[in-house]
Amino acid sequence: MSDGGAILVTGFEPFGPHAANPSEQVAKAVDGRVVTGCTVRGAVIPVEHVNARAAVAALLEEVRPRAVIHLGLAGGRARIALERVGVNVMEYSIPDNAGFKAAGEPCAPGGPAAYFSTLPLEAMLAALLAEGIPAYISHTAGTYLCNHTLYSTLHAVRNAAPPPRVGFVHLPLLPAMVAASATDDPSMDLTLMVHALELILTVVAAEPHPAR
Amino acid sequence: MSDGGAILVTGFEPFGPHAANPSEQVAKAVDGRVVTGCTVRGAVIPVEHVNARAAVAALLEEVRPRAVIHLGLAGGRARIALERVGVNVMEYSIPDNAGFKAAGEPCAPGGPAAYFSTLPLEAMLAALLAEGIPAYISHTAGTYLCNHTLYSTLHAVRNAAPPPRVGFVHLPLLPAMVAASATDDPSMDLTLMVHALELILTVVAAEPHPAR
Amino acid sequence: MSDGGAILVTGFEPFGPHAANPSEQVAKAVDGRVVTGCTVRGAVIPVEHVNARAAVAALLEEVRPRAVIHLGLAGGRARIALERVGVNVMEYSIPDNAGFKAAGEPCAPGGPAAYFSTLPLEAMLAALLAEGIPAYISHTAGTYLCNHTLYSTLHAVRNAAPPPRVGFVHLPLLPAMVAASATDDPSMDLTLMVHALELILTVVAAEPHPAR
Amino acid sequence: MSDGGAILVTGFEPFGPHAANPSEQVAKAVDGRVVTGCTVRGAVIPVEHVNARAAVAALLEEVRPRAVIHLGLAGGRARIALERVGVNVMEYSIPDNAGFKAAGEPCAPGGPAAYFSTLPLEAMLAALLAEGIPAYISHTAGTYLCNHTLYSTLHAVRNAAPPPRVGFVHLPLLPAMVAASATDDPSMDLTLMVHALELILTVVAAEPHPAR
Repeated sequence: MSDGGAILVTGFEPFGPHAANPSEQVAKAVDGRVVTGCTVRGAVIPVEHVNARAAVAALLEEVRPRAVIHLGLAGGRARIALERVGVNVMEYSIPDNAGFKAAGEPCAPGGPAAYFSTLPLEAMLAALLAEGIPAYISHTAGTYLCNHTLYSTLHAVRNAAPPPRVGFVHLPLLPAMVAASATDDPSMDLTLMVHALELILTVVAAEPHPAR
Repeated sequence: MSDGGAILVTGFEPFGPHAANPSEQVAKAVDGRVVTGCTVRGAVIPVEHVNARAAVAALLEEVRPRAVIHLGLAGGRARIALERVGVNVMEYSIPDNAGFKAAGEPCAPGGPAAYFSTLPLEAMLAALLAEGIPAYISHTAGTYLCNHTLYSTLHAVRNAAPPPRVGFVHLPLLPAMVAASATDDPSMDLTLMVHALELILTVVAAEPHPAR
Repeated sequence: MSDGGAILVTGFEPFGPHAANPSEQVAKAVDGRVVTGCTVRGAVIPVEHVNARAAVAALLEEVRPRAVIHLGLAGGRARIALERVGVNVMEYSIPDNAGFKAAGEPCAPGGPAAYFSTLPLEAMLAALLAEGIPAYISHTAGTYLCNHTLYSTLHAVRNAAPPPRVGFVHLPLLPAMVAASATDDPSMDLTLMVHALELILTVVAAEPHPAR
Repeated sequence: MSDGGAILVTGFEPFGPHAANPSEQVAKAVDGRVVTGCTVRGAVIPVEHVNARAAVAALLEEVRPRAVIHLGLAGGRARIALERVGVNVMEYSIPDNAGFKAAGEPCAPGGPAAYFSTLPLEAMLAALLAEGIPAYISHTAGTYLCNHTLYSTLHAVRNAAPPPRVGFVHLPLLPAMVAASATDDPSMDLTLMVHALELILTVVAAEPHPAR
């Protein structure tokens, strides 16, 4: 049995024009694994900000993770994006799965402008590049559900003692999603994305465990 | 033993800034396979136009293929590109592997402006998309060695009776090539590229055999 | 009065999603000018291949130009594109203005695979870059009306003695077209495009006059 | 004489591979103008974070502006970018003009993760689009001098009573910069950029004057 604590990995349901969501598939693929003594809990959350936040809150309560890795889809990006910052704004270019289209509302009224990810981004990046996986550190997670979730979880745990490490990883489209569209968007194989997450989990699991 | 004739697949050596070339790896991966009764001969040709042409001529003489599928690398493209046309011009943005940098010379002095690929591009495209592999029909193979080879082989077999079908397929960068560079270029897994070639070979092998 | 002969410049009507077409505006802007002794005739042709070809035929008959510069819009391109080749295929991603959507038909049944532009592309490019105007030599004019017109005019004059020089120049979107869309497409000011055409006309007008 | 207060506009010197900087040219172009009663002070600041911050501090002291509009160059962007957020990190992909290459240092040690721009971005965007100028609201100003300056000025005025409005506008490359490079980058005419700033100044000058 593992005693290194738990790592929560979340993916999103499909949304907008997309019939699939690689973040959902990757989260399911790693669910139940044990990495360097840490148990991985993979879960799928809805593409609607109130319910997404509630789902994450319930998972934090249940899993009590030492780290949270949110995953999401970033159509049009060619590489895995390690997000450095979540900002306190929701501005949607398309409605969420409940039909809501935010137009500048804050993620958390009265909250700070932004939070930085607390995952070890540089070490994660080095691990991915060393294995030949295209990746970079991004400074915008957009203003849709992905950014909202990164911001909201960091806001939710801000007073925890100790807080779990929290971050967000954006994934490219799957090849079949590009083939099904008429676009010239870049894509990445699911196998490579799952391997990327394995590397990220290994780096995150190796971080010193916060005192309890 | 197969009696459906041979299909020649060529890839290129690495060139310019690239330490690898997926076209070489794919050509080697399918070498020796039998597809719908056709024997596949995979070969690697040099990135230098005189020697590339000579290498292809020797392979045509030796293999006497019913079809020729040239493969090459197109850094920056996100999808597998089925090339429709080879044009009679060489204009290199970087030198070839012999240090030669063409500046508008024809591939074949006195030759026609262009040849169309004689592979069944529409059927190849349909087969790729049906399997979820990003692909499209391209109308420019550039003006480097790839275009030269497409044009030159079509020019070489123009009077054969019957000529083999001839075409060119451009491949994206491999993920590790993007990871090793500082670029935001799209990439594609080698596994997916090899699968794409398997599908293409199946379509090409199903074409009626030219009478001899 | 000018005695250096005439240069025909054509632009296209708006088409598809576009409410304007810079090629129309540039053709009108240079209509009637005299450049190095050459009279410029600017005309607008329809976005429908049969009528476009007929309109060009009538203009060739009437103007008897020493050179023809077709202009068209290439949404998504960032620079002025001097097209080197027109290919004998029509494959439309959107219908033309008559509702026709070609699917691989030749521009001229039985015609050669392609014609090269007979304009002095290298000199035109040098003139544009020297004035700080982004430009390049392109090897695909697409497979829509633009390519059709380049191919068809070169095909139409192939037996003329002497034939006029013929070529095609693709223009980026106008800034207002990008502002009106939700896209991130590049654009170019009309003033800069008109200046580009002035430079091109000067280069073309300086070419030796074919004997009559 | 104008009595509506002053608006400070800053541009940057050329840097890295660039022989020019449109932000410098636009800042100089609007220097001394009076817009809706506001006097515009255009100034050029160095591409080095300590000196840039000092230069801005001196200008704030001298000009005592009601609003600050920092301008900078974003090579590769096609539209004018109204930046919404400055983040507390410096991570340079190329050295600054003093040879310093930041690797994750904060702009202000101990400062918050980010500040939001306090300019009226939505109204600025609407004014630009209504005049046919490609523009958008951006959520990353990068992590080079541009972001540093946006963050640092917002940090510097955080306790002012009242603070001036502060924001950052990224400009595309000039056409001549693209022509001089071998890239396919988008560009925008200086005339259009200056007009964009005129529109932005008009919107900013119309904002209620903070009480003093």
